[in-house]
Amino acid sequence: MGRIAFDEMCSTVTRAFVNAGMSEDKALRSARVHTESSLDAVYSHGLNRVPRFVEYLQKGWVDADAEPTLLRDMGPMEVYDGQRGPGILNALTATDRTLELAAQHGLAIVALRNTTHWMRGGAYGWRAAEQGKILIAWTNTESCMPAWGAKDTRLGNNPFVMAVPRKEGPVVLDMAMSQYSYGKLQTTRLKGEQLPYAGGFDVDGNLTTDPVAIEESRRILPTGFWKGSGLAIMLDILAAALSEGSATHQIDGIDQGSCTGCSQIFIAFDPDRLGTSEHLQQAVNGMVDYVNGSQPADPNRAVTHPGQNTVAARMDQQKNGILVDDDIWREVVSLAG
Amino acid sequence: MGRIAFDEMCSTVTRAFVNAGMSEDKALRSARVHTESSLDAVYSHGLNRVPRFVEYLQKGWVDADAEPTLLRDMGPMEVYDGQRGPGILNALTATDRTLELAAQHGLAIVALRNTTHWMRGGAYGWRAAEQGKILIAWTNTESCMPAWGAKDTRLGNNPFVMAVPRKEGPVVLDMAMSQYSYGKLQTTRLKGEQLPYAGGFDVDGNLTTDPVAIEESRRILPTGFWKGSGLAIMLDILAAALSEGSATHQIDGIDQGSCTGCSQIFIAFDPDRLGTSEHLQQAVNGMVDYVNGSQPADPNRAVTHPGQNTVAARMDQQKNGILVDDDIWREVVSLAG
Repeated sequence: MGRIAFDEMCSTVTRAFVNAGMSEDKALRSARVHTESSLDAVYSHGLNRVPRFVEYLQKGWVDADAEPTLLRDMGPMEVYDGQRGPGILNALTATDRTLELAAQHGLAIVALRNTTHWMRGGAYGWRAAEQGKILIAWTNTESCMPAWGAKDTRLGNNPFVMAVPRKEGPVVLDMAMSQYSYGKLQTTRLKGEQLPYAGGFDVDGNLTTDPVAIEESRRILPTGFWKGSGLAIMLDILAAALSEGSATHQIDGIDQGSCTGCSQIFIAFDPDRLGTSEHLQQAVNGMVDYVNGSQPADPNRAVTHPGQNTVAARMDQQKNGILVDDDIWREVVSLAG
Repeated sequence: MGRIAFDEMCSTVTRAFVNAGMSEDKALRSARVHTESSLDAVYSHGLNRVPRFVEYLQKGWVDADAEPTLLRDMGPMEVYDGQRGPGILNALTATDRTLELAAQHGLAIVALRNTTHWMRGGAYGWRAAEQGKILIAWTNTESCMPAWGAKDTRLGNNPFVMAVPRKEGPVVLDMAMSQYSYGKLQTTRLKGEQLPYAGGFDVDGNLTTDPVAIEESRRILPTGFWKGSGLAIMLDILAAALSEGSATHQIDGIDQGSCTGCSQIFIAFDPDRLGTSEHLQQAVNGMVDYVNGSQPADPNRAVTHPGQNTVAARMDQQKNGILVDDDIWREVVSLAG
């Protein structure tokens, strides 16, 4: 594991994207989000995801030049077709448009259909909250998880983001509907470890912490068992319905890698426009203090609020450089070369 | 366990509420929601909750006559103060107003502060979906669950509802942020059974399926561990912020039973107004069929979509009468007498 400075990583990733056919401007904007994700220690959708995104561009699964087009204008709600353009750029456009509409109307929603993988959902939450806005956003995905009580994978993990601004640093939740990602299973397996809690069923239908057994059965666990299963179904239906786009069963039919053709929702509130900024700060600071003041189960481990660990990782890596897997870094450098 | 017909239960509960000081009309509207909850096999917030609601009326924790007042009108968003009126009536008013605004604007949000326990959150989801609308709604609560990594209870279980209309019957999710409720711990303990999955930590910090050990430690488990903990925090902050109402730490300060003074959010979409009705039906039917067509882990147990078991219970109890705990039924009859 080496450490790479933010600017070096960002310019290297930009060159990799330009080499794969993106314009300089689009490559830079995409690369910045990948780099920020790695900076925030969300490596899976940061640097580590660059080779796969390049592959999707090369296969034509992502259209480097496509721009979202307005399908429907309903005042505080707009619907866009992402035209299978780069998922990060489509999601940035959707986020920024939602914030713009929220500044006008107090609240707003943008639904985006036919887009591609947005990488780290939290990116859009941080972006909104750092501009003083509240964001609720989610995406559907291809299936990767069985519904509760099922053996075959028919649900997406449908990441869900909630972000609230706060003077001392936003509070941001970014959660998928599976208890663990396949990425987490892989890294746990490579370390020869067990998951901290049960992450799925083995082929015999027993709950297990063994990543190998879950990779074999493909029976990854919905977060909270039946609850995450139900929530994944609802998020999927709503994303597809409101964007007039594809639900998970249809994304499975597209079959061009992860999230190609997916549907996304961005809901924003502008506390300034709504006149609730002061109350918001009271609520968020009150609850943050309450949670942080909890009696820890492990005296050496503070109780944190959503986003707190992200800020800690970011500050560390801003100072010391961003941790990279050396093999992946070499691969990206080669794509950029 | 006996069985009571819908009309008999509804009129008995109505008389109990009238005896506790509610007007005939308000008593009937509240009683109908309690009865419908029992009909749908959500006994905990149906008939079984009637004695406690009567107690709250008698203590003055719920104001039988109070009506919600409009605090803020922002077009598709309105904020109300519930004045600590009956939680069901306030939530019905908020739901109906949200649907009305959604019919005008396509989407709408009502935030309700200073209300009281809405009983079964799903009631409002079913109500909206049966009128062809999409509803997302949640409430915060007093604290009853430790944050992830904490020993003391500082989070509400903050029930969250998502409902989507469907010609063949709505799809409705109604989930609290704890893996199990204290009610479920109690019924499991009374049967001398273990929970099907770990529901909390014992006093030594070990995950356990033993309801007695969890009741002792009060360390009930957030659904999906850190994920349900994070989601509970976000839902709480948003409910309080948007309604200019109380967050969980402030509800704890009120200390007048469960949910007194809580904050609620109702977000609705009108698919007809948005012109997305047809696409919605495709998305919801497509995913319902996909999920229901899953390969079941237990060949004797079909894989269901959210709300499917509710419909089955409802149909059974409409035909055969509503199951009641005999002691509770006698208590409610006595309150009505």
